[in-house]
Amino acid sequence: MIIREIRVTPIAFRDPPLLNAAGVHEPWALRTIVEVVTDEGLTGLGETYGDLGHLGKVRECAQILIGLDVHATNEMYARIAAAVGDAVTDLHGLTGVATKEKSVDRVFAAFEVACLDIRGKAAGVPVVDLLGGRVRDAVEYSAYLFYKWAGHPGDEPDRFGAALDPAGVVEQAALLIKEYGFRSIKLKGGVYPPDEEIAAINALHEAFPGVPLRLDPNAAWTVATSIRVGRELEGRLQYLEDPTSGIDGMAEVAASVPMPLATNMCVVTPDHLPPAIAARAIGVLLLDHHYWGGLVRSSHVASLCGTFGLSLSMHSNSHQGISLAAMTHLAAATPNLTFACDTHTPWQDGQDVVAPGALRFVDGAVPVPTGPGLGVELDRDALARMHEQYERCGIVARDDTTYMQRFTPTFSANRPRW
Amino acid sequence: MIIREIRVTPIAFRDPPLLNAAGVHEPWALRTIVEVVTDEGLTGLGETYGDLGHLGKVRECAQILIGLDVHATNEMYARIAAAVGDAVTDLHGLTGVATKEKSVDRVFAAFEVACLDIRGKAAGVPVVDLLGGRVRDAVEYSAYLFYKWAGHPGDEPDRFGAALDPAGVVEQAALLIKEYGFRSIKLKGGVYPPDEEIAAINALHEAFPGVPLRLDPNAAWTVATSIRVGRELEGRLQYLEDPTSGIDGMAEVAASVPMPLATNMCVVTPDHLPPAIAARAIGVLLLDHHYWGGLVRSSHVASLCGTFGLSLSMHSNSHQGISLAAMTHLAAATPNLTFACDTHTPWQDGQDVVAPGALRFVDGAVPVPTGPGLGVELDRDALARMHEQYERCGIVARDDTTYMQRFTPTFSANRPRW
Repeated sequence: MIIREIRVTPIAFRDPPLLNAAGVHEPWALRTIVEVVTDEGLTGLGETYGDLGHLGKVRECAQILIGLDVHATNEMYARIAAAVGDAVTDLHGLTGVATKEKSVDRVFAAFEVACLDIRGKAAGVPVVDLLGGRVRDAVEYSAYLFYKWAGHPGDEPDRFGAALDPAGVVEQAALLIKEYGFRSIKLKGGVYPPDEEIAAINALHEAFPGVPLRLDPNAAWTVATSIRVGRELEGRLQYLEDPTSGIDGMAEVAASVPMPLATNMCVVTPDHLPPAIAARAIGVLLLDHHYWGGLVRSSHVASLCGTFGLSLSMHSNSHQGISLAAMTHLAAATPNLTFACDTHTPWQDGQDVVAPGALRFVDGAVPVPTGPGLGVELDRDALARMHEQYERCGIVARDDTTYMQRFTPTFSANRPRW
Repeated sequence: MIIREIRVTPIAFRDPPLLNAAGVHEPWALRTIVEVVTDEGLTGLGETYGDLGHLGKVRECAQILIGLDVHATNEMYARIAAAVGDAVTDLHGLTGVATKEKSVDRVFAAFEVACLDIRGKAAGVPVVDLLGGRVRDAVEYSAYLFYKWAGHPGDEPDRFGAALDPAGVVEQAALLIKEYGFRSIKLKGGVYPPDEEIAAINALHEAFPGVPLRLDPNAAWTVATSIRVGRELEGRLQYLEDPTSGIDGMAEVAASVPMPLATNMCVVTPDHLPPAIAARAIGVLLLDHHYWGGLVRSSHVASLCGTFGLSLSMHSNSHQGISLAAMTHLAAATPNLTFACDTHTPWQDGQDVVAPGALRFVDGAVPVPTGPGLGVELDRDALARMHEQYERCGIVARDDTTYMQRFTPTFSANRPRW
């Protein structure tokens, strides 16, 4: 099955004003949709970041994969590594340090997923079967709460409303749980002074007793603040995600707080694993196949984490159904991925390049798609519409900070902030 | 592709009197051949140890896999783990400590390889393509030298003749290199006092200048002896394999000798990796899919080794062409497996359950079979003949020590010996 054509299509879709340590989500989120087409006419889908620097690398690398067999992922990786070279296509700073290796893994991942989609279609099996077969029939996701404005400045309030204090956060959680059935809750923190976020966690704890909670301030805190917050939240959190930056800082915090620390910032490439493990910096790794080099390499990392006693959860950025399907297949095939995964799906609120029907939430979990490959098909009208939106929206790279500064000129994304 | 039948056939084939720290190879070597048959009539091949305790577990587990899809390897592993339970089917003591986990991995591996063979056949691609695709077209193997008697006591000398001193070892190397084109040499040591084995290595170094050399005394030495030998062999060895037993002992040696240490004894299951890495006990891991849980799990271990800066080679026991094919596919798909692999193939001297033609050595390397799946087919006459040999030979478990004691009653396999 030889790759004859690869189509790379950037898209934009509406995104609510979600607050985080770097600023606030812009009105449009970007992604890139990859379609790999073989000589036999099979098409595989991949999805990746939409930032212009990354998009350029994806387009460049798409050309050098033409003519390869869809199984030749080692060769694909080698070619992409050579093409990316020392280029570091930096992203928005919320997924940790950008490195050359991570840039290669990020570009490779979208093609790898598309090739697995093709292989699954050819074999008549879902992608989960190419990863060892399902160990669970549905993959649990968490309610991913954000502090948010009622709407983008100048726009009408969106249907989610404002969440700027504990009561607003609880209300948001109730809405997402009602609509999706989530049984775990994650709050994106790093937005307000830590005591306000402690209050929000306590409010969630009271409103949803027994529901596992997580807090992720995206390294907005110093080591001392992280330790103080961690201790104050004893008994409240399933894990505390990236309270502070860097492996050394995380290790210092980990030694002094009662809950495990999770990360998608201080360990984002294989090179980070040995020092993080040696320093006992983390207890939970948030996998993300978009930057861990695709599904198979993510399963290697999962296996390594099992060997070293690290637990697994899964990270998410704003994404479409192609990624939700890929994440679900990977999680369903990973025995030691036992925490509910993150997803931004609710915030896309139905906007999807994927045709309806294949993906749904049942009690907060996505049943593993059973169709061949990823089990999802492109909605070409939606793709065309979202590509038009990309052309029109004027955003070419995510920049939460500049957008925030338009309304709060004194805002700084410098961390640690507290 | 549902598993409808699994045939498990123990076989025996002639084995020369190869000496090692545990004794001497008996006249017959045992293996178990596994044939997995699907509802669509595809058959996949696997090969594993022939010792009776292990054979019993393989037979028992074959029953509980009927009805599973060939992709459902996670489920197969779980069922086998439950069936093996706490049973530790011990082997001959030359592949390190036996553990419950290793017993599961050993039983699972043969079925996993057979399922990959089926998946490759169904997809029309070689197994290497299911592991990421080839990074090399042929896999290098080393000349695996053994001290040996001229023939089994009471038999005529075999065609390899005796190798009981440096000159005999050099002569054996010349024969194997002439016939196979090997470009690396491994000497199984632990047989004679270390100074005699040092002399053999020096003789090989002089006879084959520039050819990488390795020495493997199977943990026959103390830490002090290992350090002395390692230092005396400075500049002579590509790596020194298992000079002494245990992770702590190996770490002590590793810190004091100039060459990397390799192992297939102190790190034989994932649980051993964290302490061995922390102690810097080894520089090279000898993969062996027969006890690392098959090809995919071996590729996970290979990836882990890459992450932690460990190099890779490959271990071998007496085996048939099914295993040679599986080893070759795995090595061809593993970018960081850069050392020549071990193989006992020359000592089987043409006895094979695999039909001739698919496997050959060119300049010491096996070109990756290009047919679908493993690319090898059973020679059913050979299988029947070797199974008859198994029934007749009277050996049900490898026991080099007792066989040695028949001729040298004072022999002890206790280690360290020197």
